[in-house]
Amino acid sequence: MSSLNLEALKKEAAIRAVALIGSGMHVGLGTGSTARYAIEEVGRRVAAGELTGLTCVATSEASDGQARALGLEVGPLTPQPFDLAIDGADEITPDVDLIKGLGGALVREKLVEVQARRLIIIADHTKLVARLGEKAPLPIEVLQFGVQSTLVRLQALGAVGELRRSSPDLHVSDLYVTDNGNFIFDARFAGADLAALERTLKGTLGVVETGLFLKMAERAFVAAPGEVREVVRGR
Amino acid sequence: MSSLNLEALKKEAAIRAVALIGSGMHVGLGTGSTARYAIEEVGRRVAAGELTGLTCVATSEASDGQARALGLEVGPLTPQPFDLAIDGADEITPDVDLIKGLGGALVREKLVEVQARRLIIIADHTKLVARLGEKAPLPIEVLQFGVQSTLVRLQALGAVGELRRSSPDLHVSDLYVTDNGNFIFDARFAGADLAALERTLKGTLGVVETGLFLKMAERAFVAAPGEVREVVRGR
Repeated sequence: MSSLNLEALKKEAAIRAVALIGSGMHVGLGTGSTARYAIEEVGRRVAAGELTGLTCVATSEASDGQARALGLEVGPLTPQPFDLAIDGADEITPDVDLIKGLGGALVREKLVEVQARRLIIIADHTKLVARLGEKAPLPIEVLQFGVQSTLVRLQALGAVGELRRSSPDLHVSDLYVTDNGNFIFDARFAGADLAALERTLKGTLGVVETGLFLKMAERAFVAAPGEVREVVRGR
Repeated sequence: MSSLNLEALKKEAAIRAVALIGSGMHVGLGTGSTARYAIEEVGRRVAAGELTGLTCVATSEASDGQARALGLEVGPLTPQPFDLAIDGADEITPDVDLIKGLGGALVREKLVEVQARRLIIIADHTKLVARLGEKAPLPIEVLQFGVQSTLVRLQALGAVGELRRSSPDLHVSDLYVTDNGNFIFDARFAGADLAALERTLKGTLGVVETGLFLKMAERAFVAAPGEVREVVRGR
């Protein structure tokens, strides 16, 4: 199939996710190329009068700007639970466990989406994996101060990887800095117990958060050749 | 006793801690009013030719500046272990467990001092407690984004407290921001298992680090009325 068709199917996946939003809901807006389609569709439904009284929180400045430009009401993150949050992912298992963070917004995404009663993922089929880490590295946000020491601690836990650069150009050595002022270590890990891995990594001195999103998402709408597939946790 | 005498005894405590430093050592320099005396004494011993070949890492810009002004060689934090680190503390138990962070440098202090083969504390006797939390709140460094949600999670764990302000003036509402760009929640906790508390807090989404320094310090030199007392772990 052409990539044009895949883009059309990603839009279709976004439309099916946004169909779950009802009037008056408090909604979390994700970040990235697929989440853009969802925000666009939310804007369309609000403009068409299909949805009223929505309040939104965005997981990045980019999504915040897009949503405001569409006339959506966007506020700061408060403890109010989200009825629904919609976001992309970098890897998705059959049980809708996720790796997120290749876009660099993993901490804000996690802070928002942990408060979502329903987290809905939209992606294309290249993100489907049997187990996490198959294709994508696991992004780990780490403090700048003493980063080499933190990497030694992570390596002692079995992590192999590198600090993310702000440019793919190998001649550019500037490191990528997150919205929170931290670095990202893109790591590969052996081992199957991801819940234990997440606890261990988060508990490591110098680590701020990881891109493991376990048991958080309810379902994913996945653009696959010729159709949008639905992947549901616990089904 | 007069506070003049207590200051003289704090200097004496610092001198006894610095006496443990030998030539060629890699040394961690703490932050705060008592640590200042230690850096002063290191500078004096180096200037007097008693110590040579020292390399130092400072836990704050202030200590970095003081050490450089004294002609000490100060570098960035690398994975090289410290032969010795000297710092103050806000609370000290008989087993030299600590609360640190009232000065706001808790994360950098922990990142440096976890690499110290010997962590030596200097303080005055008002910092001695039977158990941590008796007098001082526990500083917890938290991300700015979604801070109200993080506080809800901490309150669910039993924390009572407030975000630190940058001024004690009640009319000033600006929140204190750490060197890492985060807020500090000064918390009080019930419960006796501090190691479990530290793991739980560090594992909480939105938390960067805590001011609990458990089983890290070897000994403390404590300025008490009329004498400098030595408190040693496991004695």
